[in-house]
Amino acid sequence: MSRALRLARRGLYCTHPNPRVGCVIVADSGKVVGEGFHVRAGEPHAEVHALRAAGERAYGGTAYVSLEPCSHQGRTPPCVDALIAAGIRRVVAAMQDPNPQVAGSGLRRLAAAGIEVDCGLLEAEARALNAGFIKRMEQGLPLVRVKLAMSLDGRTAMQNGQSQWITGAAARAAVQRLRAQSSVVLTGADTVLADHARLTVRPAEMDVNEEQARLAASRPPLRVLLDSRLRVPLSAPFYQAGKALTVCHQASAKVRQSFQAAGHELLAAADASGHIDLFELLRLLAGRGVNEVLVEAGATLSGAFARAGLVDEYQLFVAPKFLGSTARALLDLPLERLGEAHALSILDIRAVGEDFRIIARPL
Amino acid sequence: MSRALRLARRGLYCTHPNPRVGCVIVADSGKVVGEGFHVRAGEPHAEVHALRAAGERAYGGTAYVSLEPCSHQGRTPPCVDALIAAGIRRVVAAMQDPNPQVAGSGLRRLAAAGIEVDCGLLEAEARALNAGFIKRMEQGLPLVRVKLAMSLDGRTAMQNGQSQWITGAAARAAVQRLRAQSSVVLTGADTVLADHARLTVRPAEMDVNEEQARLAASRPPLRVLLDSRLRVPLSAPFYQAGKALTVCHQASAKVRQSFQAAGHELLAAADASGHIDLFELLRLLAGRGVNEVLVEAGATLSGAFARAGLVDEYQLFVAPKFLGSTARALLDLPLERLGEAHALSILDIRAVGEDFRIIARPL
Ligand SMILES: [Zn+2]
Ligand SMILES: [Zn+2]
Repeated sequence: MSRALRLARRGLYCTHPNPRVGCVIVADSGKVVGEGFHVRAGEPHAEVHALRAAGERAYGGTAYVSLEPCSHQGRTPPCVDALIAAGIRRVVAAMQDPNPQVAGSGLRRLAAAGIEVDCGLLEAEARALNAGFIKRMEQGLPLVRVKLAMSLDGRTAMQNGQSQWITGAAARAAVQRLRAQSSVVLTGADTVLADHARLTVRPAEMDVNEEQARLAASRPPLRVLLDSRLRVPLSAPFYQAGKALTVCHQASAKVRQSFQAAGHELLAAADASGHIDLFELLRLLAGRGVNEVLVEAGATLSGAFARAGLVDEYQLFVAPKFLGSTARALLDLPLERLGEAHALSILDIRAVGEDFRIIARPL
Repeated sequence: MSRALRLARRGLYCTHPNPRVGCVIVADSGKVVGEGFHVRAGEPHAEVHALRAAGERAYGGTAYVSLEPCSHQGRTPPCVDALIAAGIRRVVAAMQDPNPQVAGSGLRRLAAAGIEVDCGLLEAEARALNAGFIKRMEQGLPLVRVKLAMSLDGRTAMQNGQSQWITGAAARAAVQRLRAQSSVVLTGADTVLADHARLTVRPAEMDVNEEQARLAASRPPLRVLLDSRLRVPLSAPFYQAGKALTVCHQASAKVRQSFQAAGHELLAAADASGHIDLFELLRLLAGRGVNEVLVEAGATLSGAFARAGLVDEYQLFVAPKFLGSTARALLDLPLERLGEAHALSILDIRAVGEDFRIIARPL
């Protein structure tokens, strides 16, 4: 199963909206006879790749799959049927299908066909790999990661806005990988205007092997810009770098047309108070198959996600320097009493080149 | 030598103003026949303890010492003479005496007596253990550590001052150990007034073994309060908790007398502009044998040390929470341009209970 998970991870940058899945087929003799991972939606599932590789040697063998095999006809035929047809004797899944309406039905169909079935091996690892997909299936919302680059004293930029290259090359490569694994990279107008940010994935800067860079390039995330008053011109590097989805308060037919002509999508979505409702936006994105959203924005927009309780994970890249007490705050998050402090749980702290990264989750 | 350093570390909380030193005597057979460490100034040096333990078995043996043996008559007779008298064949020292006027003379006297001499084994570890003593010997200044407790977003307290217990019990125990290893714990009037802080070492809260707690209790650090306008009353818990040294701008004879009567020392030390000169204060403390100063103060005083470039090491205790953008800054350190940022080198990041600790050094 550990091997199946390793295979699944090879799909980190390309399977969305589908989950990352790996499969290993082991013959009665204990020998691995086939393996595979799911690469892209519409293409064969992991089980099919593994069965193809195994051929007749799959007969009587055990299939280790990092996710319950599918039992429904999707863009590809159900894997359950393929496993039965190949004469697999035993199926071990790391976890059930997280879709509550499906959960367990694939395993039940296998069991009904006389196949020995086990589920739950390395489940925690399997769930972690597809946390966004699982959240979307279970709650109709994507997983939201907020990435922030800060100094050791919690500042993101000088008062005058100077901030570029607070963190070093290794941290920037890690950010590239975070973008590549996301279905959506979400930002705000201030960030795009101030830094001429494009928020694209540049596979050459990801610091991964050729296969991974190629797979990432084949499935770039959708870039979503929150620009309520449409301050960012279509001539900005952000729009020049590829198709984007822009969310604004309201837009005339003419403006809509100009976005469409440039290959972008424009969405008018203001609530009664004239603000963009972040929760509704996330629901809309989940409805489009978005598993993981990376928020790469300034203190205002990142703070809005924090205040609304919509953050699943903070990815803090910390540069070993002090920017001082007049520099800009990490998040726009005014709190009065100690009891209002946002409690977090630290999942990981690790050196990333000269900098370090803290992964934290709101409690 | 590794064993000698381990012994030396047992003196972490009690040898100041002397360095921590350990000694192991190994017989010709390879067997350890004696070991010891220096406990307190005025008491025998590590070599003497080790030679006493070895007795006649020291003859022909090798002495591993974490610091060059002394050759001058201090409060105890020179160790060099004791080693020669015991018939030691070989002496291995981790490092020379850092006092530039002494360096090497102990080793030279040993060599002149026909003893084989080596120096430099595990020198980096030996130097790290006595970094404060070495700095005082070489530069006439103590090592300055600034301890700060902050949230993940770099804040020390809410705007209203609420801050107690930002970090948890394990972090507080680590702070107790930092205090105990320091010759001086230095603070400011705001901290003492706001938190009723005593800044004492409470050995029971250090989370160390009985021996270490006992040794720490036997040699508490001097508490130094910078209170330019003498705002802290002698009835404050800080003064009630034991002898302190207070530094102010000026004091009348009557005030001086009241401090003296209460068992405290009062020092008037303002520069031309009416500020306390931190550099001169550190020189004065070094002159009194202070090796390590722990600054436990608010953003103003800690920031003053940072701005003056007088910090050797930051000890940042980080609680996994956000206190928000209106909370108090880590340091009073107003900087305008990114180029003025204070660059740091991260020496260690480590979990401490629920919190984590970053040890950083200015570059
Ligand atoms: Zn399938
Ligand atoms: Zn000595």
